[in-house]
Amino acid sequence: MTEGETRHSPAPWRRSPQPREAPSMTDLTAPPFSTRHIGPSATEQQRMLEAVGFESVADLVAVAVPEAIRAKDRLKLPAAAGETEVIAELRALASRNRVLTSMIGLGYHETITPAVIRRNLLENPGWYTAYTPYQPEISQGRLEALLNFQTVVSDLTGLPVAGASLLDEGTAAAEAMTLARRAGKAKSPVFVVDADTLPQTKAVLATRAEPLGIELVEHSLEGELPECFGVLVQYPGASGRLRDFRAVAEAAHASGALVVAAADLLALTLVAAPGELGADIAVGSSQRFGVPLGFGGPHAAYMSVREGLQRQMPGRLVGVSVDADGDPAYRLALQTREQHIRREKATSNICTAQVLLAVIAGMYAVYHGPEGLRRIAARTHRHAAALAEALRRGGVEVVHGEFFDTVLARVPGKAADVVRLAAERGVNLWRADADHVAVACSETTTAADLERVATAFGEALGHDSASRADLETLVADESLDRLPAGLARESGYLDHPVFHTHHSETAMLRYLRKLQDKDIALDRSMIPLGSCTMKLNASTEMEPITWPEFASIHPYAPIEQAAGYVELVETLERWLAEITGYDAVSIQPNAGSQGELAGLLAIRAYHVAGGDTGRDVCLIPSSAHGTNAASAVMAGMRVVVVACDSEGNVDLDDLDAKIAKHRDALAAIMVTYPSTHGVYEEAITEICAKVHEAGGQVYVDGANLNALVGLAKPGEFGADVSHLNLHKTFCIPHGGGGPGVGPVAVRAHLAEYLPGHPLRGGSPVGPVSAAPYGSAGILPISWAYIRMMGSDGLTAATEQAILSANYLARRLAPHYPVLYTGRGGLVAHECIIDLRQITKETGVTVDDVAKRLIDYGFHAPTMSFPVAGTLMIEPTESEDVAELDRFADAMIAIRGEIAKVASGEYDKNDNPLRNAPHTAEAVAADEWTHPYTRTEAAYPVPSLRDGKYWVPVRRIDQAYGDRNLVCSCPPLEAYED
Amino acid sequence: MTEGETRHSPAPWRRSPQPREAPSMTDLTAPPFSTRHIGPSATEQQRMLEAVGFESVADLVAVAVPEAIRAKDRLKLPAAAGETEVIAELRALASRNRVLTSMIGLGYHETITPAVIRRNLLENPGWYTAYTPYQPEISQGRLEALLNFQTVVSDLTGLPVAGASLLDEGTAAAEAMTLARRAGKAKSPVFVVDADTLPQTKAVLATRAEPLGIELVEHSLEGELPECFGVLVQYPGASGRLRDFRAVAEAAHASGALVVAAADLLALTLVAAPGELGADIAVGSSQRFGVPLGFGGPHAAYMSVREGLQRQMPGRLVGVSVDADGDPAYRLALQTREQHIRREKATSNICTAQVLLAVIAGMYAVYHGPEGLRRIAARTHRHAAALAEALRRGGVEVVHGEFFDTVLARVPGKAADVVRLAAERGVNLWRADADHVAVACSETTTAADLERVATAFGEALGHDSASRADLETLVADESLDRLPAGLARESGYLDHPVFHTHHSETAMLRYLRKLQDKDIALDRSMIPLGSCTMKLNASTEMEPITWPEFASIHPYAPIEQAAGYVELVETLERWLAEITGYDAVSIQPNAGSQGELAGLLAIRAYHVAGGDTGRDVCLIPSSAHGTNAASAVMAGMRVVVVACDSEGNVDLDDLDAKIAKHRDALAAIMVTYPSTHGVYEEAITEICAKVHEAGGQVYVDGANLNALVGLAKPGEFGADVSHLNLHKTFCIPHGGGGPGVGPVAVRAHLAEYLPGHPLRGGSPVGPVSAAPYGSAGILPISWAYIRMMGSDGLTAATEQAILSANYLARRLAPHYPVLYTGRGGLVAHECIIDLRQITKETGVTVDDVAKRLIDYGFHAPTMSFPVAGTLMIEPTESEDVAELDRFADAMIAIRGEIAKVASGEYDKNDNPLRNAPHTAEAVAADEWTHPYTRTEAAYPVPSLRDGKYWVPVRRIDQAYGDRNLVCSCPPLEAYED
Repeated sequence: MTEGETRHSPAPWRRSPQPREAPSMTDLTAPPFSTRHIGPSATEQQRMLEAVGFESVADLVAVAVPEAIRAKDRLKLPAAAGETEVIAELRALASRNRVLTSMIGLGYHETITPAVIRRNLLENPGWYTAYTPYQPEISQGRLEALLNFQTVVSDLTGLPVAGASLLDEGTAAAEAMTLARRAGKAKSPVFVVDADTLPQTKAVLATRAEPLGIELVEHSLEGELPECFGVLVQYPGASGRLRDFRAVAEAAHASGALVVAAADLLALTLVAAPGELGADIAVGSSQRFGVPLGFGGPHAAYMSVREGLQRQMPGRLVGVSVDADGDPAYRLALQTREQHIRREKATSNICTAQVLLAVIAGMYAVYHGPEGLRRIAARTHRHAAALAEALRRGGVEVVHGEFFDTVLARVPGKAADVVRLAAERGVNLWRADADHVAVACSETTTAADLERVATAFGEALGHDSASRADLETLVADESLDRLPAGLARESGYLDHPVFHTHHSETAMLRYLRKLQDKDIALDRSMIPLGSCTMKLNASTEMEPITWPEFASIHPYAPIEQAAGYVELVETLERWLAEITGYDAVSIQPNAGSQGELAGLLAIRAYHVAGGDTGRDVCLIPSSAHGTNAASAVMAGMRVVVVACDSEGNVDLDDLDAKIAKHRDALAAIMVTYPSTHGVYEEAITEICAKVHEAGGQVYVDGANLNALVGLAKPGEFGADVSHLNLHKTFCIPHGGGGPGVGPVAVRAHLAEYLPGHPLRGGSPVGPVSAAPYGSAGILPISWAYIRMMGSDGLTAATEQAILSANYLARRLAPHYPVLYTGRGGLVAHECIIDLRQITKETGVTVDDVAKRLIDYGFHAPTMSFPVAGTLMIEPTESEDVAELDRFADAMIAIRGEIAKVASGEYDKNDNPLRNAPHTAEAVAADEWTHPYTRTEAAYPVPSLRDGKYWVPVRRIDQAYGDRNLVCSCPPLEAYED
Repeated sequence: MTEGETRHSPAPWRRSPQPREAPSMTDLTAPPFSTRHIGPSATEQQRMLEAVGFESVADLVAVAVPEAIRAKDRLKLPAAAGETEVIAELRALASRNRVLTSMIGLGYHETITPAVIRRNLLENPGWYTAYTPYQPEISQGRLEALLNFQTVVSDLTGLPVAGASLLDEGTAAAEAMTLARRAGKAKSPVFVVDADTLPQTKAVLATRAEPLGIELVEHSLEGELPECFGVLVQYPGASGRLRDFRAVAEAAHASGALVVAAADLLALTLVAAPGELGADIAVGSSQRFGVPLGFGGPHAAYMSVREGLQRQMPGRLVGVSVDADGDPAYRLALQTREQHIRREKATSNICTAQVLLAVIAGMYAVYHGPEGLRRIAARTHRHAAALAEALRRGGVEVVHGEFFDTVLARVPGKAADVVRLAAERGVNLWRADADHVAVACSETTTAADLERVATAFGEALGHDSASRADLETLVADESLDRLPAGLARESGYLDHPVFHTHHSETAMLRYLRKLQDKDIALDRSMIPLGSCTMKLNASTEMEPITWPEFASIHPYAPIEQAAGYVELVETLERWLAEITGYDAVSIQPNAGSQGELAGLLAIRAYHVAGGDTGRDVCLIPSSAHGTNAASAVMAGMRVVVVACDSEGNVDLDDLDAKIAKHRDALAAIMVTYPSTHGVYEEAITEICAKVHEAGGQVYVDGANLNALVGLAKPGEFGADVSHLNLHKTFCIPHGGGGPGVGPVAVRAHLAEYLPGHPLRGGSPVGPVSAAPYGSAGILPISWAYIRMMGSDGLTAATEQAILSANYLARRLAPHYPVLYTGRGGLVAHECIIDLRQITKETGVTVDDVAKRLIDYGFHAPTMSFPVAGTLMIEPTESEDVAELDRFADAMIAIRGEIAKVASGEYDKNDNPLRNAPHTAEAVAADEWTHPYTRTEAAYPVPSLRDGKYWVPVRRIDQAYGDRNLVCSCPPLEAYED
């Protein structure tokens, strides 16, 4: 129980209040933001230090963190600013972004986020602070929302299995390419790319193809196809052209190749589904379903596949299963595909998805329903058709006769003029080349916008242009429609009642609330996930991202219209470089996995540029995150595993042996620091030196940077490259499983190999993400965090994180063995408790403990990583001592329950642990047959009587769901009795 | 169960989906906002019409609404705009408000709303859509929050009993004045007002004193006091002066008069409490505890009183009681004081409070704690002291030697220059008169602000001014402090743990979530409160109110800085006039009660101006809201009750008799239309004519305007004046019991008697609220609603409200008698079901049904108003048919339970109704001794298994709480075991 939580039944241990002090008139400084971000007060910190046995935080850190890696100086960052000040600074930056009407297209469109969804989902910590739904029982709300998203994708693409989102359309296309290679029968190394593919998709494909030995061939898709293992069709094309690709699909299939369609979901409400045209895989972006432009992201990409390919799909997949009572329940399906389990045999390194954005897109479809979506698409098309006709009447050549939303106009030599004149009228168009302008319509396009566009064309080309009244007439004229008759959509979609019942704002509001209430997020209780760093996502950090000046900028808007963004990005990159001790940072990677890939590609390019073409071995300790190995494979490297000792540290002898064996081929070592065991390895500088000596590069995975910021800098203690997770250490919320941001940071010799972008400046390596600045739209969050914390605040946060982990370790150690410790018996910022002996003796598993924690109102710690049979706990600096104690008390109470199993007081198979979690329905059932009481089930500690979280389902049968895969809302027939 | 709410266990009555239609390419218009605001779709509406027995809405309305009152034309309003368009229009209006730093003071100060509170409370429908906590079991969250507020007020003012907020400081002072008159022993009609009182307070006191025969005497409070029944001291004074009023209090008490202190809560953290200086009553504003300026409101005023006066207090008072299990629980205490029960014997007409704002102020104190508040106050004072010293050094005379936050400077003939020069530097000061400028410091004041102010003085007076560095030095110099030594605060405050445990953002976030989760608000389920119109508060309507351009304008800022506000107000007043058929509207009254008073004062002034000084009788039907009678008394009128017939209509014979009896004294009649019985009285035009013929004016209470908008206009069918409730018909959320807005609308002959304001233009009547534009900060809500609905949408909403009420009446009629109906057996927008016979036969009371509805997840309908033993149900237009059916199903299921009591199947005293509501703890208890099952208690209908609301306490013992009055957080000793 937290102090003060229940007024009238105080916990016996409650301390007396702070002693009354005379009003202090001297200390007038407003307490810095760090006192709001960091949970424990100074008094509480002192209490924790006493428990851990230190006099001061400095003493603790001196013992915990090896001297060899300690940074010498304070971080050179601007002094911490207050919340109000930072909002003012961000408003000033925002005001330097100019919001024009965007008709640029190219995969990014204006859209209207319904206000009820913005306020109650995108701006609601109940949604955005949730973690990835690995614990499905406490994630039923967002799992249902993701199932809605999957249903939208599956129905619209006409392919039966859709995943729960990918990072962006470019990487989704790259994943489809490698899927086609794995799954197809064709032996050719060639992947054919539609010449009318989005430029950023082409570029990401190129980045990803090269290390894997895939040959990309760009092709018009007219005439004969080259021999290939797969072909990607853009539908509609980047130029707007809409064509039937049935023949292409037939040809590809005839030669054993697979067909990938990169399709626009909104267009699909009116035209035939890719699955109906022969696509095996569909990918694309769901951005225009209500997700703000955000200067390029984050947005949810999608992938769907035909029957037979689902086990090859990258990323997460939500499926339906049953719980212990046989009631339906949602969970992530086919998790054995994932990289954290399959490691170097993984099919993809994707870890983070774009859950929050996928949920928005799904809710957009729920709110509009199929008729509403169809109407929006029809309006969009009709405006494009009207513009095409108006331009034609003005004598402008419109290149394509059939299109959905984008009109490509030929204006020899005048493209720049047209674009400039339109911008002067507040509209951004796309200069395709010197002779062509593309104009993309969207949900927001009005006749007034078309008039401004037509006027720009008229002025540039010297003809009279259509008036607004003319354009309104044209918009109303359905004879002008330009959708190919043969592609008219005949199949239905979104029949499920969920897309027909929440169309009033009241109904939508309640649906969002109902789903939110099913879940545990940070707004309810601590989420003590080792390695995942679920710290505070402060409101001040979150507010700016929905301001229109940040939310409504197209990634390809003229750069001078994004001056505020550019400054924010450059400043953030500089600050991150200072914090990590590197020389250059790119924020482009929109997930940690992409950051890893970018870092390894930089190493690869560096070796190649130095003539070291044979260096392709990547050493990875056995304790590493599985993603590391998957990324290395994607970067064209061979993974060589280095053993760890019993303490979880790299086995230096084995390292020497592996270096000796692979000396000439050694490309890199990837290590996590502090180690994935939560320990500051003493030998890290030695490891770095050994690898460098052999000509390799050192990659330090920044997943655990929360234990280093302000205390040590990887770029200074020996590493060449790191990726960071802004959604871990730098406060970007996890969003229920994404967005993430995974900047890559390098020393100077690797700087030129950071990711480039075809539309914003090249690089030898090319882009790893579709958008030039990745998930730019959420960067204000990390910017604000660093700005408000300053050097002292950031350092204090790290110190508190270390203290809190050690405090918990000390509280739990008498009850559970703490697995790995470093000097002085200390852990770093997380601790691992070992249940293996307990399981052996009692049959109680980590799963039982994790599910039982739900009954106590907690999300479980990380399970069985890095060691099976353990729980890894990371409290973060944001939890106050009352919450840490509440968690420790719960774990200790659970230990007591385990003891009763051991002693036989509880039945081995029918006890509160094995039956956890307990729903309200279960404990209020008329019959109670268990040998323990209802109170023991529901209220094992008294504090639960005040505001208990009630889990909506009982323990979910994982195997059942994989055996009976259902990944979209069940078809309507299921509802007929 | 709502369609689609549970995927896998569909309700048997679920309809098949809409038949597949070919994509409609012709109907491209985006559906208007009204389709989001109105719950039922066109298809659903048709189904409802069938149930009620009509072919079309027009047919229904033609029967339901008397022809005599029907408006002939559509409303002349701009065509409905979409949500995006309206946001753009409001941004344009907002951009015409200029946000300067406000150092004007006079009861309104800049303050920082902590972002965590803004996002999770002020912008959270879980808080703002809640109703007044009359059903305490489902209101424990906001009741706890209000208890925090009361504790803050009680502790800081040093008076033991504080209420749960009043409308504004001016009306709170007026309420204190009348309280002093009621409670004091002195017979004098004189109320002495400190000359240094805020000008708006003086003006409101004058408005309120005159009709009651109270003589106001303004007095310096130096020298001898006049004979009086009470005296009001402003502490600190409007001029900034801070003085010890102990001698004044002693003198007042010696003559039997009561002392009212109007005190600044922030100052009280540093100086002696009013209660310690002898005040019997304290009033003031809590605005500067985190509530935005909002151009004057809404803000929560407070009142606290010494022991012995609590039963005389106006407004609501939260107290602690116990529930059926003996556990502590919160509820409104001493409700028998309230006007809706005491009618013309009420001590005040106050009905709405400022709950949402009081909750914010309370949370601000929770977040900062006593030390934080003290620090903010000290900073504020130190900046004022530094400025005073800087001005002195520049040769400027500083009038008062002792002050808290406001420096009054004497600048002969130069005040306007100083103010202008400061404004040019971005700071608003107050020109007290031609020779004096007041500068008020606040939480936000910085040395940079002081420098701008000092420079303005320097330039105006031609002296060198202090530099920022000088000012920083002065701010740091505690020897400059100017708080009187004798007034230093020695007593403690806010010892309760709640003010010591939520200081990190994480802890605050969770506290807000925990309290929110205890309550039912519109984001969970329908709140079918007759007369209170709990319709949708749309996100688009709500978003603008927290934009800085609306939130950060001082009510006395130069009017040209508020051009956007002024246009918004004028437009809204014009639209409301059009909707009601009146000629002029004032939005100043910040609650319905104040609107009533303003309307009656206009009538009074009109009669007096016409020489009719003897007209003081106000006829009020026996069915009227209690507030009507209370308002009439406050307006100096005598209430004469007119009988109603058995159908709830005005008894025309009795009306004739009363008119005849009081013909020469007849001032007015107050009627509600449709009647409080939910019926369109056919005789309304006749009633109006009779009263007019006798020289009286007709006041139509606009409480039920939701049944008239677009169909009938009171100003056209015979009324002279109405007040409206923007928080009912026009979508301002109820905020858990306020804010409200109660504009008064009049025909042309009364227009000149609308409320004035001393600082914005006079009127013969004077202001009824402290701020010139009342609760201006929330007017964008109603503006946006009308703008998005347009004439057709508003009319459609009214029609749907009528249809929905009749639909519910038809569904319930076979089970419960529907009490009053008009033509065709129809009701208006609400219906009353009669439980009196049921109670007689079974002992099951309306209270039992209301509490049992909680178990079904619903807030109860209005209980026992206007007729004891009944429930009045108003579904509003925003509820879709699924929710209406869910409610009807619950009521029908409850009727089945009642039948079991009647048949003896259920025990008379131990049944699910009598024991309702059932907590999770109760139904999961180890022992279950009731003769009905746990399932019958908790899950009487299967839909509750998906997302059931769990009430946090069992039925609350109202009498216990009144007998054992505890109205603030219990003292700390209560926590020591």
